[in-house]
Amino acid sequence: MSFRTLHDRGVIARYREYLPVTDATPVISLNEGSTPLIHAPKLSAKIGRDCEVFIKYEGLNPTGSFKDRGMTLALSKAVEDGAHAVICASTGNTSAAAAAYAARASISCIVLLPAGKISFGKLAQAFAYGAKVVAIEGNFDDALRLVREIGETEPIAVVNSINPHRLQGQKTASFEIIETLGDAPDVHILPVGNAGNISAYWMGYEEFFSLGKASRTPVMLGFQAAGSAPIYHKRIIEKPETIATAIRIGNPASWDKANNALEKSGGAIDAVTDEEILAAQFWLSSNEGIFVEPASAASIAGLFKSLDPTSNRAYDAARFPEGARIVCTVTGHGLKDPEVIKEQCGSVISAKADRSEILRLIS
Amino acid sequence: MSFRTLHDRGVIARYREYLPVTDATPVISLNEGSTPLIHAPKLSAKIGRDCEVFIKYEGLNPTGSFKDRGMTLALSKAVEDGAHAVICASTGNTSAAAAAYAARASISCIVLLPAGKISFGKLAQAFAYGAKVVAIEGNFDDALRLVREIGETEPIAVVNSINPHRLQGQKTASFEIIETLGDAPDVHILPVGNAGNISAYWMGYEEFFSLGKASRTPVMLGFQAAGSAPIYHKRIIEKPETIATAIRIGNPASWDKANNALEKSGGAIDAVTDEEILAAQFWLSSNEGIFVEPASAASIAGLFKSLDPTSNRAYDAARFPEGARIVCTVTGHGLKDPEVIKEQCGSVISAKADRSEILRLIS
Repeated sequence: MSFRTLHDRGVIARYREYLPVTDATPVISLNEGSTPLIHAPKLSAKIGRDCEVFIKYEGLNPTGSFKDRGMTLALSKAVEDGAHAVICASTGNTSAAAAAYAARASISCIVLLPAGKISFGKLAQAFAYGAKVVAIEGNFDDALRLVREIGETEPIAVVNSINPHRLQGQKTASFEIIETLGDAPDVHILPVGNAGNISAYWMGYEEFFSLGKASRTPVMLGFQAAGSAPIYHKRIIEKPETIATAIRIGNPASWDKANNALEKSGGAIDAVTDEEILAAQFWLSSNEGIFVEPASAASIAGLFKSLDPTSNRAYDAARFPEGARIVCTVTGHGLKDPEVIKEQCGSVISAKADRSEILRLIS
Repeated sequence: MSFRTLHDRGVIARYREYLPVTDATPVISLNEGSTPLIHAPKLSAKIGRDCEVFIKYEGLNPTGSFKDRGMTLALSKAVEDGAHAVICASTGNTSAAAAAYAARASISCIVLLPAGKISFGKLAQAFAYGAKVVAIEGNFDDALRLVREIGETEPIAVVNSINPHRLQGQKTASFEIIETLGDAPDVHILPVGNAGNISAYWMGYEEFFSLGKASRTPVMLGFQAAGSAPIYHKRIIEKPETIATAIRIGNPASWDKANNALEKSGGAIDAVTDEEILAAQFWLSSNEGIFVEPASAASIAGLFKSLDPTSNRAYDAARFPEGARIVCTVTGHGLKDPEVIKEQCGSVISAKADRSEILRLIS
């Protein structure tokens, strides 16, 4: 391998044979994937019975979220197909990933958004990676409709979730977990918004199981935000609300696929409140040292709910086998949205520049 | 290996034999390190002559900076030595890393700072990881003096840069680069602030060279911010100023070690302006798809300066051998300080919700 093409890792480099690429596909990569699977001793102790919890820390992808796994595929295929640009409607992690991989591919990235809803903080990454951010007169549905129309007639690839390559890239997270643990876990817990990720993980688990690379598939447990829980409530939510913006989706694109994963795996979908999400976020950072964005903490809040006999939980953690291995995916880094944690945190302690006073205050 | 202790990676797990740990040392880890070495085709083309540039993306450590490599050692040794807490004076990456690893170790982290200089944004991570942030009446030197005093008399470990274990952990980045490339690079370029990192990398390169794991050591090129360049100017800077806060240091702790690395490697120290740093930061994100904090971009700005015959460069890139492999370390993720890039970026484009108008605007 020449140094021009050397990647010490990257989703396509690592899992080429399981992905829809050929020798003619240019690899647009930022060495995404190969994220750590971090043992969580305190979460494990909360379950007991020799169960072991591991956190798949997807915030350590190049743009800070799991979206990079799908975007390396989406951009590589777009360039292979002759696209001059990519386009999406997104204020968050998707636009960040699209912009970064488009920069890498030396093609334009267009982010279409409703005027009046644009804050620099949410779009800082899209701007940093050089995307063209277009504010239209209209709402988010108008933006998405225009994205699709433009994708149909122009040499511009749509990289919103209707892009089929993205789930293919995202499934590689399951491959990594199987390779690290030596087998599939017993239980896999995820946040659920557009439901693409739970669908992609299930696809990956089924694929490695069918190839004999795992002896089982895990029970899949999905958690939605209570104000944005269409799969849980079995109906479209017209105005979804939650502080966990990355899973604020009222009509998930991968609804059917998610239901299939839940049913076939013997899993369940459940909902957690914003309060539970925020509490779980701070618990995870201040106890396990892992800082995630609010949406990511839905998986941890969900695990806590499954452990709580006083809750109306959809799945009782007592059903986890003794010694079970449980993986929780956390989808994005806490640095994506650092202000949210402010209210959960302690405040500044004031002191004189005096050794004994400081020792008294911190004891 | 039991699943209780399983780490698929981590600095101590990967390089135990080269680090000051024994079987009695508890490993406090977040699976830090093993960060990607990303090929930079556009930077390579700027040099030409078949040279290849690689970016060591240290922003993909768990807390978003290279500090995690040293902090896993510092906290593991602190716990081994019976410390009940760790303490530091830092507003930035050091306090974030100290707080995360202290949370992991279930001991307290105390961050001491001058009152009036505390913004939530800079300290969001320290708060999120549950640190106790103490504002004292006094300046930064007073805070650092108190940190040292407390460390001398109490069972509280100082994790500021005087902690000798941190450089030991940081040297592992060189080991990883040698293992990925198959040898040491010809040239290594780094930002220089407190000068610990350039010293640690050199330590790592010398160690693997002496063990026969590399056939050479690289030329080390260090770049300071022009308003904060004590090593370049060979004098303490009383009031260092630069937008690259992570390298705003007037009297570096590892000054002598850095001079030794520069001299022995045949390298050089140089300075780049804030304007050059900000331009390099945006160039890197919008061309290579790699978003870094301003201090990190000093290495890229430095490479550009070395290529510019009209500059008063300390090192001429024409001295790089043909086909040279050049590694640039970028020390922290752009999400650490996203507002800074705002002025470099494009602005929002307004449009009607009309296909043809949008196509015209983005063409």
